[in-house]
Amino acid sequence: MQISPWTLSDLYLIAVGGLSPLDGFMDEGAYRSVVSDMTLPNGLPWSIPVVLPVADEESAKISVGQPLALYAPDGKLAAVVDVTDVFDRDRESEADAVFRTSDRAHPGVAAMYRMGGRCVAGPIRYVYDEDITGFPDDNLKPAETRAAFTDRGWETVVAFQTRNPIHRAHEYIQKCALEVVDGLLVHPLVGETKSDDIPADVRMECYHVLLDGYYPADRVMLSVLPAAMRYAGPREAIFHSIMRRNYGCSHFIVGRDHAGVGDYYGTYDAQKIFDEIDTDALGIEPMKFEHSFYCLRTKQMATPKTSPASMEERVFLSGTKVREMLSRGESPPEEFTRPEIAAILMKSYQARASAG
Amino acid sequence: MQISPWTLSDLYLIAVGGLSPLDGFMDEGAYRSVVSDMTLPNGLPWSIPVVLPVADEESAKISVGQPLALYAPDGKLAAVVDVTDVFDRDRESEADAVFRTSDRAHPGVAAMYRMGGRCVAGPIRYVYDEDITGFPDDNLKPAETRAAFTDRGWETVVAFQTRNPIHRAHEYIQKCALEVVDGLLVHPLVGETKSDDIPADVRMECYHVLLDGYYPADRVMLSVLPAAMRYAGPREAIFHSIMRRNYGCSHFIVGRDHAGVGDYYGTYDAQKIFDEIDTDALGIEPMKFEHSFYCLRTKQMATPKTSPASMEERVFLSGTKVREMLSRGESPPEEFTRPEIAAILMKSYQARASAG
Repeated sequence: MQISPWTLSDLYLIAVGGLSPLDGFMDEGAYRSVVSDMTLPNGLPWSIPVVLPVADEESAKISVGQPLALYAPDGKLAAVVDVTDVFDRDRESEADAVFRTSDRAHPGVAAMYRMGGRCVAGPIRYVYDEDITGFPDDNLKPAETRAAFTDRGWETVVAFQTRNPIHRAHEYIQKCALEVVDGLLVHPLVGETKSDDIPADVRMECYHVLLDGYYPADRVMLSVLPAAMRYAGPREAIFHSIMRRNYGCSHFIVGRDHAGVGDYYGTYDAQKIFDEIDTDALGIEPMKFEHSFYCLRTKQMATPKTSPASMEERVFLSGTKVREMLSRGESPPEEFTRPEIAAILMKSYQARASAG
Repeated sequence: MQISPWTLSDLYLIAVGGLSPLDGFMDEGAYRSVVSDMTLPNGLPWSIPVVLPVADEESAKISVGQPLALYAPDGKLAAVVDVTDVFDRDRESEADAVFRTSDRAHPGVAAMYRMGGRCVAGPIRYVYDEDITGFPDDNLKPAETRAAFTDRGWETVVAFQTRNPIHRAHEYIQKCALEVVDGLLVHPLVGETKSDDIPADVRMECYHVLLDGYYPADRVMLSVLPAAMRYAGPREAIFHSIMRRNYGCSHFIVGRDHAGVGDYYGTYDAQKIFDEIDTDALGIEPMKFEHSFYCLRTKQMATPKTSPASMEERVFLSGTKVREMLSRGESPPEEFTRPEIAAILMKSYQARASAG
């Protein structure tokens, strides 16, 4: 069976231990437990189904007890599933519970409905040896990040998830967190994202330039997370933290509207959801940050927790505003983004604009 | 018996619960346990002896089983001790263990040798109702800070100990810490300090002005700690954290050379000592920060953990340099201290200079 880049991401992450303790795609029991209770059948926290979707007509050809060969988009054999279960995906319940909406305009809900309505479960044997990230030099596996942390003597490491360029607001939060732990892993998601997100190659150029200029090399690492983006907000914040635990991190930054999209989630819903789960069993500590901005009163980056600034004294630009500025060839102010990052984004925007 | 302001501080702190679980001055068993093992006889971490020193000739008049009346420096009855023990203070061992030096030029060692060589132990009954701090409007007792934290809904509160004005470097550390907890208690020590430290009234004016201008009122509280300063570095960092636990704080900031003086302690000795004790039993979490500075490269406050700046790119002024500038009527740069704070310090220095 031919698989999508999304499923290839899931396969890869299962194979390298990024989705530990999963050793394959979820069966119906695990799927229902995760959707309804946010736990695996063994009680461990888990927030997002990891399933192998197939169309109805395909599923008729698949038998429990038989191996199923999965072929990557390039036609090469990627993995073999030892099939233990084939079941109906309950997409309505999943949308309501995981995405908190049944709106098919939600990109995660839309992606789910584009996939087949049946799921194939079972442990996998991964045999694909091609790079799936596009960034093989910046793709450390969980065993490799863990070894790197040990080599550097880092006992506590905070992970930063992003699918965007890192502006001053994110830099501020990262550095606040870093001040109270040993190291920072900048861990951008480079799997499938929605088409209007900034492409991963442009982002990776931004990350490299930013880290080279503004971060100390002995306290910060950059590596990619080849996961697909679900845009599931609160549920995905937990999912993101579980993956970072598996990569060896002790702390995970949860900012405003983490993994959110549009207006589907409240600004701090992705922080509040951690109160509903057993964070000891989660094995990684969320670090929650409020909305950060450059403060004209105190002349430094801040959040409402650390600044008495009025709204007028806060330099904050929406993503839309920044895109408009870049399209017009205007550089956002240095209080918002480092000039080197603005230059890279500007170049990318103008190239896309001239390409239509 | 007439007591010193130092002993009055200790009495007050015992009475209000700032030194809980102590309910009086240590007996010989507790004293020796604290000096040699950094624990109370019940095993709880405790780093600094809290004793009632008396001269040899006075101690001859004191009997175990008898009440001993203690009179404040103003002549009023301060407390009564139900004497349970009278013993020799082992000043040499105490100096070596607690102060890590036998040098009598060390202000804490010097203070110890100025006191009597015998100690009187026993639970106290505190009856003094005068303010001992000089700042009655800013002196919340442990029960009052705890109630204030509860009122504000703060589950996690970080305490900042200081005996100095708060410059940008301290503000940075406080705000980094505050970003990851619910509230900040600025908790300046206003008991006895050495004569060349900046007087508490000048410092309090600085704190009020700084908090009013640069901190959000709903996340920060100011209250005084009427403890005497020991300058015992690492041991005193633990002692300071125990008191803040008693005031209801969950976290305690330990910066470079905490409670140090001269060159007696290594820059980060006061952080490392927390590795030697049971921090669960301590009941408060140390937050360790490196040396902070304004970074000309990243144009913001930073530490070596969060900035790749060379030494030349770090704006840092020594206390000596700042005192020299203020004496000459020069204001330290805004990257070092807020202009309003510089103005208060300048006024104080010039007044002291013209007073000779």
